[in-house]
Amino acid sequence: MNVNIRPATRVDCKDISRMIMELAVYEKMPDQVKITCEELERDGFHQNPFFECLVAEVPEENKDDFTTVGFALYFYIYSTWKGRSMHLEDLYVMPQFRGFGIGKSLLNAVAQVAKEKRCARLQLNVLDWNTASRDFYAAKGAQDLTVEEGRHLVRFDGQSLENLANETPKN
Amino acid sequence: MNVNIRPATRVDCKDISRMIMELAVYEKMPDQVKITCEELERDGFHQNPFFECLVAEVPEENKDDFTTVGFALYFYIYSTWKGRSMHLEDLYVMPQFRGFGIGKSLLNAVAQVAKEKRCARLQLNVLDWNTASRDFYAAKGAQDLTVEEGRHLVRFDGQSLENLANETPKN
Repeated sequence: MNVNIRPATRVDCKDISRMIMELAVYEKMPDQVKITCEELERDGFHQNPFFECLVAEVPEENKDDFTTVGFALYFYIYSTWKGRSMHLEDLYVMPQFRGFGIGKSLLNAVAQVAKEKRCARLQLNVLDWNTASRDFYAAKGAQDLTVEEGRHLVRFDGQSLENLANETPKN
Repeated sequence: MNVNIRPATRVDCKDISRMIMELAVYEKMPDQVKITCEELERDGFHQNPFFECLVAEVPEENKDDFTTVGFALYFYIYSTWKGRSMHLEDLYVMPQFRGFGIGKSLLNAVAQVAKEKRCARLQLNVLDWNTASRDFYAAKGAQDLTVEEGRHLVRFDGQSLENLANETPKN
């Protein structure tokens, strides 16, 4: 399949927003999605964007109501051991367009941006039960740091973050 | 103990660099640290810094060769479900200054910045065997997403990132 990978623009946010929800449904947590198309436009396409995004599109003859069939959304992070790095937040290809190497093309393009921007690392999160994704990244040479080094992801949100910010520690 | 928490400046990088190495020794991976004091100065204290940092300092009468005894280094990330969020990369207090609530004060101050900057979440990584840290964050209300949702951290670096960037996918 002839696939074109290009940086997303503001007008892609409608497609990206739709695919974010499709991915959340696949990950069995659709009720977690609070972000809107307008917020993506505001957060990703001003002067100091909070993220960058690539989209994958296929020519019209292969499309099924959509030209844009996948996306990769990433941003820059920092390692106090290695320096500037990249986090790949989402990599998604619509189910009916899987098996044509579009996910691989998106991942390669993200890695190229990471190298251009002198990132030492490219990291991402995968769900334990998602063996298709885990096998895909492992086959490409990724290390699973949760398995190999015992790294856990820990999070404060909602009330726990509020409590933390309002707490006055005893000195 | 009377502790002062303040934003780091460029001149703090020598202390931060020293404490990054102390933390890596504690985490049993000191050979992983490649970052230098000069790189921290360049990466954290230009116009669009890659990270922000708070330091904890104690008055001279309590110091043991150091006035700066702890730090918290963080940066902004993005959730496609919740929007702008914060990642706490390192939280460290020198061993001889632990037990006085300095770590809690640093964490509270980081959470306050997160709220001011309208971050929906504050996240971090902990090592499986570091039960002191895991218990500390759990007691503050954090969720362990590796345990609760099966989230794994996966990473490309060095040769695997190079290979990914150089690969030309078959279409």
